[in-house]
Amino acid sequence: MYREVITLDTKGEMDIVDITDEVEKVIERSGIKDGIAHIFCPGSTGAITTIEYEDGLLFDLPAALEKIAPRGAYYKHEERWHDGNGHSHVRASIIGCDITVPFENRRLMTGTWQQIVFIECDVRARKRRIIVSVLE
Amino acid sequence: MYREVITLDTKGEMDIVDITDEVEKVIERSGIKDGIAHIFCPGSTGAITTIEYEDGLLFDLPAALEKIAPRGAYYKHEERWHDGNGHSHVRASIIGCDITVPFENRRLMTGTWQQIVFIECDVRARKRRIIVSVLE
Amino acid sequence: MYREVITLDTKGEMDIVDITDEVEKVIERSGIKDGIAHIFCPGSTGAITTIEYEDGLLFDLPAALEKIAPRGAYYKHEERWHDGNGHSHVRASIIGCDITVPFENRRLMTGTWQQIVFIECDVRARKRRIIVSVLE
Repeated sequence: MYREVITLDTKGEMDIVDITDEVEKVIERSGIKDGIAHIFCPGSTGAITTIEYEDGLLFDLPAALEKIAPRGAYYKHEERWHDGNGHSHVRASIIGCDITVPFENRRLMTGTWQQIVFIECDVRARKRRIIVSVLE
Repeated sequence: MYREVITLDTKGEMDIVDITDEVEKVIERSGIKDGIAHIFCPGSTGAITTIEYEDGLLFDLPAALEKIAPRGAYYKHEERWHDGNGHSHVRASIIGCDITVPFENRRLMTGTWQQIVFIECDVRARKRRIIVSVLE
Repeated sequence: MYREVITLDTKGEMDIVDITDEVEKVIERSGIKDGIAHIFCPGSTGAITTIEYEDGLLFDLPAALEKIAPRGAYYKHEERWHDGNGHSHVRASIIGCDITVPFENRRLMTGTWQQIVFIECDVRARKRRIIVSVLE
């Protein structure tokens, strides 16, 4: 197994960052030719999934998340922390914090229009660490 | 690691295909007795999860997805491609495009009423490739 | 690969059980220092994700799931089984039944406020088996 940590500076709530190239670079440095790459976000307000990375969907996915867990709604989480991010936690738990992607000949086997993304669900810009584990 | 690609011909939007047997056959051909099988869909309008594969739920899950990302709603994605599948992308990103399932003695350790499924979120019938990676 | 099965007695619908410590104990017993742990729920009405494990969110996440798949709504699944858990299946399929978490020096690399949880989506208390596979 080979492992690296990618660091990101997100720009604020619903910043969606394409990390596909960074993951592929980790695979290249691993020296492993064929295997799987596991991508994990430590933290309970960050999510990882895949999406076609284009402006329209970067608007549409947050709009759907706003319906599932709206910003202005009541969250009991607020009674403890008062940090205004109850919806952030709910969104991240539903999407999930990890993904595994196969690679072949050091190339991710994702579709042409499919990128691996980190979604900042928290209400502010944050420094994030993404853990990439490469197995063969 | 052992890898095979399963090919599917889906019948159109919200076609949910049981791929459990196909995955188990890949495990058998791998020669690996105990391990994990990773199932991945390349493409940003296909989703993978598990469900009890019976007619009722094949109706109920799409009904829930229709609430999360309705077909008729506005999607900014349309402004770029005009292919009418903005909701398909959103649904696939929320459910996710991969799953990992443990197996023992060449048998998947899924529950009796739990099948691995591919969900066609796109608006038309498509040929799909599903990548199965077997690790021990 | 090392594998163990964790058993849980859930207390009923939307019981959310923190299984982080149990998973870490499995890692310790595996003797593997660095790797990934895969956690899987056999059964189609149980879900696995991560969350900040505090009372507020244990209320907020079920509230969001109630919007996605409400208890009182019509589910075609009921026509077959009449067991009142159509919404349970839908919720579990959307969240997902597995997660993979990296570990280093026998410690999970989760965030400080991020716990691995099993969510009982079924409508009654159940005995659950969670399969933990440890790979290096």
